[in-house]
Amino acid sequence: MNAISHQIQLLRRPTGLPTLEDFALRDVPLPALQEGEVQVANQWLSVDPYMRGRMSEAKSYVPPFPLNGPLDGGAIGTVQASRHPDFKVGDKVSSMLGWRDAFVANAAQLTRLPDTTLPPQRFLGALGMPGMTAWAGLHKVAHLKAGETLLVSAASGAVGTMAVQLAKQAGARVIGSTGSADKVAYLKTLGADAVINYRETPDLDAELARLAPEGIHVYFENVGGAMLDAALNHLVVHGRIVLCGLIEQYNSNGQASGPRNLSQVIRKRILMQGLLVSDHWQHYGAFLAEAMPAFEAGTLQAEETVSEGLASMPQAFIGLFQGRNTGKMLVRLP
Amino acid sequence: MNAISHQIQLLRRPTGLPTLEDFALRDVPLPALQEGEVQVANQWLSVDPYMRGRMSEAKSYVPPFPLNGPLDGGAIGTVQASRHPDFKVGDKVSSMLGWRDAFVANAAQLTRLPDTTLPPQRFLGALGMPGMTAWAGLHKVAHLKAGETLLVSAASGAVGTMAVQLAKQAGARVIGSTGSADKVAYLKTLGADAVINYRETPDLDAELARLAPEGIHVYFENVGGAMLDAALNHLVVHGRIVLCGLIEQYNSNGQASGPRNLSQVIRKRILMQGLLVSDHWQHYGAFLAEAMPAFEAGTLQAEETVSEGLASMPQAFIGLFQGRNTGKMLVRLP
Repeated sequence: MNAISHQIQLLRRPTGLPTLEDFALRDVPLPALQEGEVQVANQWLSVDPYMRGRMSEAKSYVPPFPLNGPLDGGAIGTVQASRHPDFKVGDKVSSMLGWRDAFVANAAQLTRLPDTTLPPQRFLGALGMPGMTAWAGLHKVAHLKAGETLLVSAASGAVGTMAVQLAKQAGARVIGSTGSADKVAYLKTLGADAVINYRETPDLDAELARLAPEGIHVYFENVGGAMLDAALNHLVVHGRIVLCGLIEQYNSNGQASGPRNLSQVIRKRILMQGLLVSDHWQHYGAFLAEAMPAFEAGTLQAEETVSEGLASMPQAFIGLFQGRNTGKMLVRLP
Repeated sequence: MNAISHQIQLLRRPTGLPTLEDFALRDVPLPALQEGEVQVANQWLSVDPYMRGRMSEAKSYVPPFPLNGPLDGGAIGTVQASRHPDFKVGDKVSSMLGWRDAFVANAAQLTRLPDTTLPPQRFLGALGMPGMTAWAGLHKVAHLKAGETLLVSAASGAVGTMAVQLAKQAGARVIGSTGSADKVAYLKTLGADAVINYRETPDLDAELARLAPEGIHVYFENVGGAMLDAALNHLVVHGRIVLCGLIEQYNSNGQASGPRNLSQVIRKRILMQGLLVSDHWQHYGAFLAEAMPAFEAGTLQAEETVSEGLASMPQAFIGLFQGRNTGKMLVRLP
C-alpha cells in the first residue's frame, strides 16, 4: 500500500503551448487515514484540453490550479483502505483527484463506478465527461433532429467521436473534421458520412459547399479559427452552433482572432450557445441509460490513446494540442 | 399629380464606406394606373443601416439591390390616385417603395397607417421596423426580466433609443453606449441609468466593471468591435447577446475581425442569437398595442434626424455610418 503520493505539480503558468519545464513530478507523503476517509490507488488519469484554462491566472469557470500543488482532473482507481462504510478495499471509484498515483480523501469525493463489464477507463471518456458533453450538446443545446446535417470539428477527439456516433444514432447526416488520414479513416468506421482532413483542405468554404449543398443545421465546435468562419458561411437559416471548445485558442494568451463573418449570425439568425457539461449533470443518468447498453452491445465504439506512467502525463497533455490523440487521451498507471 | 418618379439609383457597388458617386438621381416616367393599382406620393423615406448589405453583391437575407434600378426601403406617403376600392385619395400609407418621391404599385404593396394623432413618420422609426426590432430583441430573443442589467450599443440610434426605453419600462437597469456628449445627455433624458461615450472611454473593460459590478445580463449589440469584446468579459453566467447589428463591419468588405475572447461564450454558457425583425412581424400587433398608447401618453419618446429632399438621401445614408443621427434617420420630401 502506498505511503507516498507521486503527483504532477504545476511549477509556473505556461505561456502559449505548455512545455515539460512547466511541470514537476513530486513525492508527497500520504496522511494517516481518518474516520470517513478512503485511500485510493489510481489506475487511469484523464487528460483533457479544458485543463489548459486552469493553468492560467485568468478567471475561468473553475479556479486556476495553484502553483506547486497537485493538479487535479478525472481519475479512476481502486480502494486500498477505507474508514467509510460505503467503500471497501477493491472497489473501483472515480474522482477528480487525478495527476497523482494515490490519495486519501473524504468518501464524499468518490463515486463508485456503475456495475458493468465495460473497461473502467470508459468512465473517463465516452461514458464520462467527454461523452456526456457530446450528448448534452446535441440533445440539450442544439436539439439535433433526424434528417439534419451536423458538422463536428475535432471529430476524432474524445468529445467528437461521441458526437459523431450519437448524431448518427439520432438519424442525422454527419460531417467530421480532423487532421490526419488515419483519423479520417477511423471516423468513417464510426459512421461519419463525410470527413474533412482540414490540414489538406486549402479551401474549407468550397469543401463545405460540396459536402453540404443544402447547408449545415448544427455545428458542434471544438476548435475555433478557420473552420468556424467556414461553418458560419454554410449554416442554414436558424442554424445552431454548440460552442463546446476552442482548442486552437487555448494557447493564444488571449490574442485569438474571432470569426470575420459574425454578420452571418444576424443574416441567418443563428443561435450560438456555450456548453459546459457542468450545467447538464442532472441528465447523466439518462445519458448512461442510453449509452452503456449501446457500448455493451457494440453499437457505440470508443477509441483511446494511452500513455504509460505518471511521468508521461505532461507530455500527453501537451500532445492534446498537437493532435496526438484519437479518442480519449489517458494515462495508465502500473 | 406626379407624372414622373424621381428616384435614387445605385450606379455601382460601394467599396467600404459608400460615396455620393455610387448613387444617381434619375427621372423615370410613372406608368398609367391599371385596375387594382394605386399611385402614391411619398412624404417620408426611411434611411437604415441594413441597406448597406443590399448594396453589395454578397448573398444576404434579402437580394442585393440591382444596379441602375430604384433602391427600395420603407416609405410613408399619400394616395394620389386609386383604382383599388381599399384606398382613396388622401389616405396615408406605408410601403417598401422608398428612395423615390412617387410610385404606382399594386394595392397589395401598401399598408394603411393606423388611426392615430401621432406623426406618420413614427411608423418608419419607433413604431415601425426599428422599434419592432428593439421590442423583439428584448422580449422574444433575450427575454429580458425586471431587475436585470441591459447594455445597448448604438443606444442613440433608431433601434437603440427604443431598446433603452422599452427595457426601462420592463424594469431593467440600462447602460447605453454612444459617441457624443449630446447623445449621452439625450439618453439620460430617456431614462438610461448610465451612458458610455465610447469615443472618450479608452478602457471599455474597466468602465463596464465600474458601471456593472454585478455583471451584464443582456447585451443588445448593434455595433461589433471593441464593445463586443468588453461586453463578453462582463456578461454574467448564462448571459444573452442579441446580435442585431454590426454597423462597424458593414463597410469592412468582409475583413472585419471578430471578438478575441469568444471563449467567454463557453466559460459563461452565453447564448448569442442573431435577430432579424422579419422573423417577428406576427407580433407587430402586440408591439403596437403596447407602444402606440405609450407614445400618445408621452411615456415613450422618439427622436428624429431629418434630411430635406430626395437628393439629400445618399448623404443621409452615408451619415448613418458617421454617427450623424440621433434616433431615426429620415428624409422628408416636399
